[in-house]
Amino acid sequence: MTTPTIPPLRLGIAGLGTVGVGVVKIVRQKASLLAQRTGRAVVISAVSARARDKDRGVSLSNYAWEDDPVALAKRDDVDVFVELMGGEDGPAKDAIEAALACGKDVVTANKALLAHHGQALAETAEAAGNVIRFEAAVAGGIPVIKSLTEGLAGNDITRVMGVMNGTCNYILTRMQDAGLPYDEVFAEADALGYLEADPNLDVGGIDAGHKLSLLSSIAFGTKVNFDGVELEGIQRITIEDIRQAEDLGYKIKLLGVAQMTGRGLEQRMTPCLVPADSPLGQLKGGTNMVVIEGDAVEQVVLRGPGAGEGPTASAVLGDICDIARGFRLSTFGVPAGELKQAAAAQSNSPAPFYLHLSLEDRPGALAKIATALGEHGISIDRMRQTRHSDTQAPVLIVTHKTQRNAVDGAIDAMMKTGVMATAPVALRIETV
Amino acid sequence: MTTPTIPPLRLGIAGLGTVGVGVVKIVRQKASLLAQRTGRAVVISAVSARARDKDRGVSLSNYAWEDDPVALAKRDDVDVFVELMGGEDGPAKDAIEAALACGKDVVTANKALLAHHGQALAETAEAAGNVIRFEAAVAGGIPVIKSLTEGLAGNDITRVMGVMNGTCNYILTRMQDAGLPYDEVFAEADALGYLEADPNLDVGGIDAGHKLSLLSSIAFGTKVNFDGVELEGIQRITIEDIRQAEDLGYKIKLLGVAQMTGRGLEQRMTPCLVPADSPLGQLKGGTNMVVIEGDAVEQVVLRGPGAGEGPTASAVLGDICDIARGFRLSTFGVPAGELKQAAAAQSNSPAPFYLHLSLEDRPGALAKIATALGEHGISIDRMRQTRHSDTQAPVLIVTHKTQRNAVDGAIDAMMKTGVMATAPVALRIETV
Repeated sequence: MTTPTIPPLRLGIAGLGTVGVGVVKIVRQKASLLAQRTGRAVVISAVSARARDKDRGVSLSNYAWEDDPVALAKRDDVDVFVELMGGEDGPAKDAIEAALACGKDVVTANKALLAHHGQALAETAEAAGNVIRFEAAVAGGIPVIKSLTEGLAGNDITRVMGVMNGTCNYILTRMQDAGLPYDEVFAEADALGYLEADPNLDVGGIDAGHKLSLLSSIAFGTKVNFDGVELEGIQRITIEDIRQAEDLGYKIKLLGVAQMTGRGLEQRMTPCLVPADSPLGQLKGGTNMVVIEGDAVEQVVLRGPGAGEGPTASAVLGDICDIARGFRLSTFGVPAGELKQAAAAQSNSPAPFYLHLSLEDRPGALAKIATALGEHGISIDRMRQTRHSDTQAPVLIVTHKTQRNAVDGAIDAMMKTGVMATAPVALRIETV
Repeated sequence: MTTPTIPPLRLGIAGLGTVGVGVVKIVRQKASLLAQRTGRAVVISAVSARARDKDRGVSLSNYAWEDDPVALAKRDDVDVFVELMGGEDGPAKDAIEAALACGKDVVTANKALLAHHGQALAETAEAAGNVIRFEAAVAGGIPVIKSLTEGLAGNDITRVMGVMNGTCNYILTRMQDAGLPYDEVFAEADALGYLEADPNLDVGGIDAGHKLSLLSSIAFGTKVNFDGVELEGIQRITIEDIRQAEDLGYKIKLLGVAQMTGRGLEQRMTPCLVPADSPLGQLKGGTNMVVIEGDAVEQVVLRGPGAGEGPTASAVLGDICDIARGFRLSTFGVPAGELKQAAAAQSNSPAPFYLHLSLEDRPGALAKIATALGEHGISIDRMRQTRHSDTQAPVLIVTHKTQRNAVDGAIDAMMKTGVMATAPVALRIETV
């Protein structure tokens, strides 16, 4: 199906950090392979970044230079604007809007931008017949957006789950493997350059929450609703919790879950317990994993690197090749104007919970806790009291299936009894 | 991007077994979802199967009936011929050729047909601008062909591996979990209906070999070369080997591996040892897994159901939706005329091997074996002698990295020493 008369697809690349340089390298090194696969030459017309003279390990002399990404986006010799600058507002947004206003297609890796402005940008793009592609924004090198929108297009998706922040998974698995406390591993990760400038984007679950909100939209045909994501970071996870969870047959993961319920779209990005012998439980280090469940396909699990030059550039190139091949797809898989407004459901699907309580060591303390649970309709599956200091008695409880609001109610009641030494840890046990 | 003026995409479905019925159900039940996702109505015009009056649990009264799949393929009211009959020659091939001759697109789940005739069919289709899609032919519901041809199009693929016959994986994991011998689990699988009419297609590795030959072609841009696949079935795997492998930290899998080497395309579908804690090692039951390694993406692992009504129909629908969306792609990812003729390399990449020998229990026996190995340049990493009957001494050896032809040479030499009680088992240990 090579049609040699098709003119080249001309890229303008804004942002020459790790990923931008990775994309430049692939376009340069694999020119004939890309042409053979897409039936069309893929070339770079122009690039843009903050510092022109920085040595990036790749020659840029054949490409026009623009200091201003908006100017790059408007160039007549650019067909596809490739946005790899990042940032949820500011220059990235301005430049994408400029590109769309000029009738250009857009490829981006910018999850924060799309989580906040995806709907508006999709409407603008689709009104003019342009596409916005963002495979690299979610789960790095894993072709998860393509799998959801295309490969699994015959399914009603029932649930999407994922470990989508490699830094958090690195921290949690390193705590477990090395027996180190959170603060120490956090410092290690910082020294290794694994953390965003604002670490809360990683460890607070925000980055992963952005990704989940995009997957939810695609999976369920709903408008992106990042504000509807229940977010909880990993900062309060202790090595003690990791050890106890392991003893019970579980691992602790920062797990994203999106599912449509009768009460609306449930989206949460929170630390959860998952079975140690499940694919999610076995995931180590910075690797990402997405679990897709559909009514026809049952369950598909995708695993791969969540970041890095090569994997992220691979995802960007997948989008570029699709555009070169003439594949035109709505931004979120169905036309933006047909995406439903999904009411955010509080994350109330029933599940067992893991509770880690520290009680004052005094007579009747446990009875008060048990009463608080019972009064909120929560029954206990397993309970154990662990190492016992002079003044505090740590108690671990696995409940039978209950709901988050019942757990929250029971915790409020417990806190009023005066027997709690510290605020309890309550983690959902996700069935995977 | 809905364009309501596009006429419906009209399907003709040949073959109404499990998968065909699954496709009919999805097209009937999800009409509005499919139209929303593809921008076009997807409808069934006509169907064909052997027995018209059989109750299939789904109403076919709205569709024209053809006894002859060739007649179905030629109908004017069919845009896409969906071949779900199976068989590497005969009616399936005749009907696909008829559909292509009439300028229709083809979706098929027929791995045997494509493994033998894929190149010719692709050339015919592409000469007329038609597409042949076959996601359902490889690894059931997993969108692996889409991931390779599209999502990872920016990569030079370096290796593809996979467990792609669920029946074999069921047998091997059931042997392990229940401690049962091969013959007994084979009989169980037969009673459960897990085996093909000719069981050698499953346990002899032929079915999985067909799938591997298709993935190789896509991954490396080469003509399908099923005859170049080194095939070995699981019939000789004993519970003793499974236990010993486990003791050494490995699992035995019927593993397909394709990689391009300096000597040509290496394709093998053979029982291998893989690390027990790797994703492949952890795979249980009928689930399939494909591991894709590319120079940019590093490693992506895809896991999902390898068979069954829903998962296979899901894959067929993915292809149909792509055609409805207007996505046109060469059969094997690059134009059929540009696929390279790949010389089949003997599977000679160096690897450690597991050897299970039964020696006559007499003085000097082990020395003769050690000599045979040494003379073929094979050094021993680990050796152990296991349970000792009166007349035979089972010896297990893990070699350092060596090549298959060295192992074969050593085995020939061992057999000539007169100390071997039975032919040895030699399994490659694959690095994953």
